[in-house]
Amino acid sequence: MPFSYVSHLYCPKCKKEYSPKEKHQLCECGSPLLVAYDLERLKANLTPEDVQSREPNLWRYHELLPVEDPKNVVSLGEGMTPLIKMPKLGKEMDIPNLYMKDEGIIPTGSFKARGAAVGVSKAKELGVEQLAMPTNGNAGAAWSLYSSRADIKATVVMPKDAPVITRNECAVAGADLYLVDGLISDAGKIVGEAIKAWGLYDASTLKEPYRIEGKKTMGLEIAEQFSWNLPDVILYPTGGGVGLIGIYKALNELKELGWIKGDLPRLVAVQAENCAPIVKAWNERKQESEFWPDSSTIAFGINVPKAIGDFLVLEAVYNTNGCAITVDEDKIVEEQKKVAQLEGSFICPEGAATFLAARRLREEGWIKENETVGALNTGLGVKYPNTVDIEVPVLERNGSLTKK
Amino acid sequence: MPFSYVSHLYCPKCKKEYSPKEKHQLCECGSPLLVAYDLERLKANLTPEDVQSREPNLWRYHELLPVEDPKNVVSLGEGMTPLIKMPKLGKEMDIPNLYMKDEGIIPTGSFKARGAAVGVSKAKELGVEQLAMPTNGNAGAAWSLYSSRADIKATVVMPKDAPVITRNECAVAGADLYLVDGLISDAGKIVGEAIKAWGLYDASTLKEPYRIEGKKTMGLEIAEQFSWNLPDVILYPTGGGVGLIGIYKALNELKELGWIKGDLPRLVAVQAENCAPIVKAWNERKQESEFWPDSSTIAFGINVPKAIGDFLVLEAVYNTNGCAITVDEDKIVEEQKKVAQLEGSFICPEGAATFLAARRLREEGWIKENETVGALNTGLGVKYPNTVDIEVPVLERNGSLTKK
Repeated sequence: MPFSYVSHLYCPKCKKEYSPKEKHQLCECGSPLLVAYDLERLKANLTPEDVQSREPNLWRYHELLPVEDPKNVVSLGEGMTPLIKMPKLGKEMDIPNLYMKDEGIIPTGSFKARGAAVGVSKAKELGVEQLAMPTNGNAGAAWSLYSSRADIKATVVMPKDAPVITRNECAVAGADLYLVDGLISDAGKIVGEAIKAWGLYDASTLKEPYRIEGKKTMGLEIAEQFSWNLPDVILYPTGGGVGLIGIYKALNELKELGWIKGDLPRLVAVQAENCAPIVKAWNERKQESEFWPDSSTIAFGINVPKAIGDFLVLEAVYNTNGCAITVDEDKIVEEQKKVAQLEGSFICPEGAATFLAARRLREEGWIKENETVGALNTGLGVKYPNTVDIEVPVLERNGSLTKK
Repeated sequence: MPFSYVSHLYCPKCKKEYSPKEKHQLCECGSPLLVAYDLERLKANLTPEDVQSREPNLWRYHELLPVEDPKNVVSLGEGMTPLIKMPKLGKEMDIPNLYMKDEGIIPTGSFKARGAAVGVSKAKELGVEQLAMPTNGNAGAAWSLYSSRADIKATVVMPKDAPVITRNECAVAGADLYLVDGLISDAGKIVGEAIKAWGLYDASTLKEPYRIEGKKTMGLEIAEQFSWNLPDVILYPTGGGVGLIGIYKALNELKELGWIKGDLPRLVAVQAENCAPIVKAWNERKQESEFWPDSSTIAFGINVPKAIGDFLVLEAVYNTNGCAITVDEDKIVEEQKKVAQLEGSFICPEGAATFLAARRLREEGWIKENETVGALNTGLGVKYPNTVDIEVPVLERNGSLTKK
């Protein structure tokens, strides 16, 4: 039994194929590349029960991941994050079967760990010694830390407004870190030039084919955690959109394996009102998005004015009868508090946007009565401490409390 | 099959017994109470294989936990944190079999989640509506968040020098939070008065018997993750010491169940040089510690000048032929960086102190060649961002990188 059933890379636009044994970035035609597996052969050799008896991390799905030699696996134990029921929040929203997949409970505190674990492992397998990437913070932190574990040198450029704590993560990992007085698109241009000039491995979103394979494991785990009976709706905060593309890819692979049946969940791309290129494209029934000028949102991870994989996000939404929706900027922090006070989870603003979207879609009747809904929280609230206002009384050493 | 095999509470000092069906705090004699289980009966009804097929959270050990009705379980999916090998750090320290149990990968980002999950669940089962506690930060955050999920009102008092982010966690959870211009011992006095005056449930360290049961699951999981073949040494950063007491209790319970055999691992209590009451007591072969005046350390979670369970910590250390050791204050941050740069994990200062202790014990020969060593990292580095110095160049929007 091979460790991985990877067969080849292919371009979803021009269909050209590439070998997974060589370094590849984008297709010659400029499109991201996707990873294909020999699912027919795997179907005969693997069952859901096999997977369920393995250790609780994303490598339990190693046959569906691109790393061919287990010695190249760079792992901090990431994956199998909790899927928890949200009964009080769900009651308030009239979604009694509301669940959260909590991607804060993972090394580096965000779902970016999945992409980094698989991406860095495959980079190691391919002999990469130095990589570079732009980031809105969490991806840079994750790739910096996993790269250290893999003895790969990482160069990271992030907007100066990105969450400050993610700088500390890059710095403590020993990455070569720069801030830019601009957005992730500006960081991307700067990184792009350095990559061209110095021949670095480009670890930008979807410019290497393997990050998406890591993100895919969210979909695999959701299916397993729902006992292979999928929810009706899955909501995902969408910046670059790799998670949504990954979940869609995962569900299709599971369908081909015969592990899940019936219609796929309706996939929902959630964006902020001041950065909603995918929502605009979806509203106009377009296949691609346009650059969103002067974007801004407190949910910094989804401040992506133009995603290179936009056409794949839109395809996932169209093909599952999903939708794309914006949320009110000024309600995000309130929703974050609600989740903490009702359910005990301090989620990130991007996660709060996702619950806000669920709330709105139920109000509008798009989510129907008694449908089962899964919402992705993509990271820890503690990585964005400034979203919480605190006023705390300070007592003297011999002070006392006042009864409330 | 009952959900829990809890039988009674008992005092480790005066041996008096109490019922787990009523609220109890300390024993009449002033000692913490411990929880006993009907292990004889459980032995006949549960195997390691049963446990291993369950979901990857600490409730897989529900028979060994005090909550009797599963509907009282308040869970955010905590437990089964990664146990990962640290090959490069271990090579540098000459401990080739060095492992980290990473308690940062858990809801609220610290091992305190375990105590809170089990403590709050049992409080709910006992009908508690309001609880209060002093904290060095992380416990207050965890108890605030789990209390919100359980509809219990939490009052928390923490030193004003405690990690700032833990304030945000308490605040976002809606806890009644106060700071005090002093240490956790001062916070404890203030909380004690309020508890007496208003009849609140006292959730202070070891003043209710159930937090330790949550912490105990670290020991259960370490045993399971080492396939029931325990490491030679387990190191633990020791403030209140509940985790160490819990691990010792867990291992003894597993021994009684016949799931583990042979000598227990040597348990090591790690303290900071400027707050080392347990180490002092151990050096003097005493059974209890004395209050440590003017204590201070960057590893704030272990700044506990006098622990109420000190005699239980010392018992665990003596009975396993372990030791108690201090680490140099000014090497903690350096060790934290080393762990990040070699192994890709951004651990907390308390965790770094633990690795520093392993390093010293190997140098001194107390840890022998080729012994297997497990070190507890008790929380996320991102909760203490100020321990990392960062100097990052800021580029203009159209700037470029300089090759290094």
